[in-house]
Amino acid sequence: MKRYSLPQFLAITKEQQLPLIGKNSILYAEQFDRSQLDHYCKVADACRIIHKTDAGADLLASLLRHRTALNFFVQPSSRTFLSFSAAQTILGMRRMSLRDLKISSMSKGESLVDSIRTFMSYVDMIVMRHEDENAVKAAFWISWNSERRLLVGDGEQMVPIVSGGAGTEEHPTQALLDVYTLQKSFDQHGGIAGKTIMMVGDLKRGRTVRSLSYMMRHYPGVRLIFAAPDRYQMSADVCTFLDLHSIPYSCVDSIDDGIKDADAVYMTRIQDEWDGLAASDGHVATPERFRFGLRHLDMLKQSGCLLHPLPKRDEIDEAVDYSGDGRVVYWRQERNGMWMRVAIIAALFKADAAILAHAYPIH
Amino acid sequence: MKRYSLPQFLAITKEQQLPLIGKNSILYAEQFDRSQLDHYCKVADACRIIHKTDAGADLLASLLRHRTALNFFVQPSSRTFLSFSAAQTILGMRRMSLRDLKISSMSKGESLVDSIRTFMSYVDMIVMRHEDENAVKAAFWISWNSERRLLVGDGEQMVPIVSGGAGTEEHPTQALLDVYTLQKSFDQHGGIAGKTIMMVGDLKRGRTVRSLSYMMRHYPGVRLIFAAPDRYQMSADVCTFLDLHSIPYSCVDSIDDGIKDADAVYMTRIQDEWDGLAASDGHVATPERFRFGLRHLDMLKQSGCLLHPLPKRDEIDEAVDYSGDGRVVYWRQERNGMWMRVAIIAALFKADAAILAHAYPIH
Amino acid sequence: MKRYSLPQFLAITKEQQLPLIGKNSILYAEQFDRSQLDHYCKVADACRIIHKTDAGADLLASLLRHRTALNFFVQPSSRTFLSFSAAQTILGMRRMSLRDLKISSMSKGESLVDSIRTFMSYVDMIVMRHEDENAVKAAFWISWNSERRLLVGDGEQMVPIVSGGAGTEEHPTQALLDVYTLQKSFDQHGGIAGKTIMMVGDLKRGRTVRSLSYMMRHYPGVRLIFAAPDRYQMSADVCTFLDLHSIPYSCVDSIDDGIKDADAVYMTRIQDEWDGLAASDGHVATPERFRFGLRHLDMLKQSGCLLHPLPKRDEIDEAVDYSGDGRVVYWRQERNGMWMRVAIIAALFKADAAILAHAYPIH
Repeated sequence: MKRYSLPQFLAITKEQQLPLIGKNSILYAEQFDRSQLDHYCKVADACRIIHKTDAGADLLASLLRHRTALNFFVQPSSRTFLSFSAAQTILGMRRMSLRDLKISSMSKGESLVDSIRTFMSYVDMIVMRHEDENAVKAAFWISWNSERRLLVGDGEQMVPIVSGGAGTEEHPTQALLDVYTLQKSFDQHGGIAGKTIMMVGDLKRGRTVRSLSYMMRHYPGVRLIFAAPDRYQMSADVCTFLDLHSIPYSCVDSIDDGIKDADAVYMTRIQDEWDGLAASDGHVATPERFRFGLRHLDMLKQSGCLLHPLPKRDEIDEAVDYSGDGRVVYWRQERNGMWMRVAIIAALFKADAAILAHAYPIH
Repeated sequence: MKRYSLPQFLAITKEQQLPLIGKNSILYAEQFDRSQLDHYCKVADACRIIHKTDAGADLLASLLRHRTALNFFVQPSSRTFLSFSAAQTILGMRRMSLRDLKISSMSKGESLVDSIRTFMSYVDMIVMRHEDENAVKAAFWISWNSERRLLVGDGEQMVPIVSGGAGTEEHPTQALLDVYTLQKSFDQHGGIAGKTIMMVGDLKRGRTVRSLSYMMRHYPGVRLIFAAPDRYQMSADVCTFLDLHSIPYSCVDSIDDGIKDADAVYMTRIQDEWDGLAASDGHVATPERFRFGLRHLDMLKQSGCLLHPLPKRDEIDEAVDYSGDGRVVYWRQERNGMWMRVAIIAALFKADAAILAHAYPIH
Repeated sequence: MKRYSLPQFLAITKEQQLPLIGKNSILYAEQFDRSQLDHYCKVADACRIIHKTDAGADLLASLLRHRTALNFFVQPSSRTFLSFSAAQTILGMRRMSLRDLKISSMSKGESLVDSIRTFMSYVDMIVMRHEDENAVKAAFWISWNSERRLLVGDGEQMVPIVSGGAGTEEHPTQALLDVYTLQKSFDQHGGIAGKTIMMVGDLKRGRTVRSLSYMMRHYPGVRLIFAAPDRYQMSADVCTFLDLHSIPYSCVDSIDDGIKDADAVYMTRIQDEWDGLAASDGHVATPERFRFGLRHLDMLKQSGCLLHPLPKRDEIDEAVDYSGDGRVVYWRQERNGMWMRVAIIAALFKADAAILAHAYPIH
């Protein structure tokens, strides 16, 4: 395999990186094909089910009991951080965390590259969130080029790097949990293929809706509706991609305009922290016609579902949160994320087969 | 059961809330009756004893090995935080913590209500400390109204909420550990009933002495002595309560004036952080006549005991800390708190019976 | 044993303290004799080897499964913190951490002495890093004078205190891991005795090179070369010590001047945080002649090794980091540190015998 220097690796395209990443790390939503998506969903379901019994939970907690995870989160996050943490404990992993650069050796002038290689000395997996997307790519390169190798199954492998969100673009495990939630929601309704998904809000900067759009190429017949103010509409690069893969999409100017056609509504928050407004107390208000209220539940198909990657702000009426309506799945979506992360981590350490064997014993 | 909206729930009185809380959560010292107090003390004792053997410690560590606790502490605290953490590890719980709102999604404009519901997606119990007492009440309401339910024993229950201190008033597990410490101290002297307890210091704002006063209604014959500067004397509401329950009390103007009559001396710190002085380096000095020194140990009954909820400052002479006098129980009081929290958490998950069965096997 | 007050204990010399510390705590590199060094290295090796199998890792994780460690790190550190954390998880310890005084009761005016005694109520070992070296000594004194005792083996012992770095001088576990790394590097070359070790960089303030120099008295025939700018040369107190123990040393003015004679090169970073420069972005640049580059690898003996306590900055060329040269051992040095800390902690709790018995069974 050709060796790249770190600057060379950061300079090549994502497509050139993908074959190098293989199954050793999770960096991009683009790295999953349909069979992997189906496999991860199946493993996530198996984990969820077997964890309900002591025997199943004991099995899960034994699988990675001698593996140590580091959750290295430089950007603010409690949701993704807790979700990964919970997933790791379910698999019995030992956990450590770093959430503040001020308490690290970087205050003594150490480079991020050295810090990551140091962390790698102590742990068997790094989950990393960083505002600079190159930081997570660099972590992969460091692990690949470090001499430290883990014995996994019959072979050796590098310390896996899992992106917990990198820059404005990449959040691959969020994309996986969105797919998993859609699949579970449509489980009794023929699956994701052929469904119409309306995405609402800040489509321009929301990495979840961008990723989800890309991933829909794996599900034949899906149609997309983009409901957003002009300034936050879906970017041209995504639209070009959809055209290329013959995925139909339309743009509408309110939830009302699209909801009757939608099987799933995927709400998003206006990402004003990227406007440099995060530090101020003021947030950009969501225009009324892009806010989801109780009346929209009346308009939504009975087989439909309402998703949101969370955190949310004013784009969903509080009454919807506690409506008790089974189509409101965004809280379960969070727990789905935990199970999906259990599945991903198990697969990285080749422990997925044992989970499936326990969940679906062969007679 | 009647449904309340969150604002309605926050608006009803504590007495109206109590029947809703039941045995699902720990919010108020007032929720415990005498039989519960005795039960918790018995379970705490059992935990303390069986943990001394590997078999007992292994049993304890197996009881909640598949349950996850979140310690969500917004207010400064290391004592209560570590005490709960230690209790959870003793029961084998998986632990996560959040101690800083800056690293959470609240920096993206998420409401506290949404954050708590999110945390609830990942964990099976939330221990919460917050400067706003409504925050902990809200957490209870959210859990009650969320769809997430845990299988415990033969039934389903909400994710338990445990107050680790809420606002200026509530700190129910501290009240429990104070009772437990008094009970242990008077174990060879007939128990708490009939004893005289002198409370010293900032009685007006000290939530521990207020709670403890209320709880004394469960112990017949107890007398209270309040030793405090006028401006920090016990509030009228507590005195009215004591009159109503025919609990005798008297006010004195120095430790010397009350110590000869006291079986227990309960010292407290002047809570100047509520004066808005906490950020400054200067603290309010405790008047000399309310400081406990070595000479007071000479005046204290041989069967007496000296408590303090800690942290302390200048109200106890350092020489008392390392006097080696067995009546100085405030350090043991801290460890008692840990065992009491083990008991509480075990009971919330119906694991207390297994503990008692191990500690007191029936022949 | 004579009792000292805390001020008295802090006032006596290190030599007077050493017999009091015994085998209960780790405060100074000076407390280890040669047989202890050899023993710790042997245990560390045993841990490293048996952890490769599930049976060995399970044994290790069972040894201290009912012991709780507190990592109380007031100074910035991620390396030492993670290393101790990883070591504790390997031994199955329950872990808690405090890294920020602002979230502790000290913000309510509690003394450090009280805080430490409080922490001791909940845990069975404290690893402590503090900028004030007296803080760690005080922790030892508190544990010694507290009534809390642990049952270990057949007897009782105080809660062990382990220094994770105290002030500008003491970092005993770093000294141990340096010795362990040298010993492993020279394993096939006759051990440390008789070797020539060149120390490079900030020898004046680098506590690692100072400690390592002192420890070389345990290895006959060792020679030292000090390569440093005049202002950072090794202090007179160390030189006096070396003269007293007849350890030959010489001072050189560049890496080039000493590298041909060196078996080991021990690089260090200019400790400009002690110059009060840490908060600024600017760091003191290392003079070119004290920077290690790829060309120095060509000059280094084939049986040689290159160490660095890390973090590093500009004193080693980045190309050396990823050269793949087996003599570059500073990354492995970090992992060695973790194994050494496993050994130390195991020994503090008398669990080292079980480790050696598993690693080297008697037939």
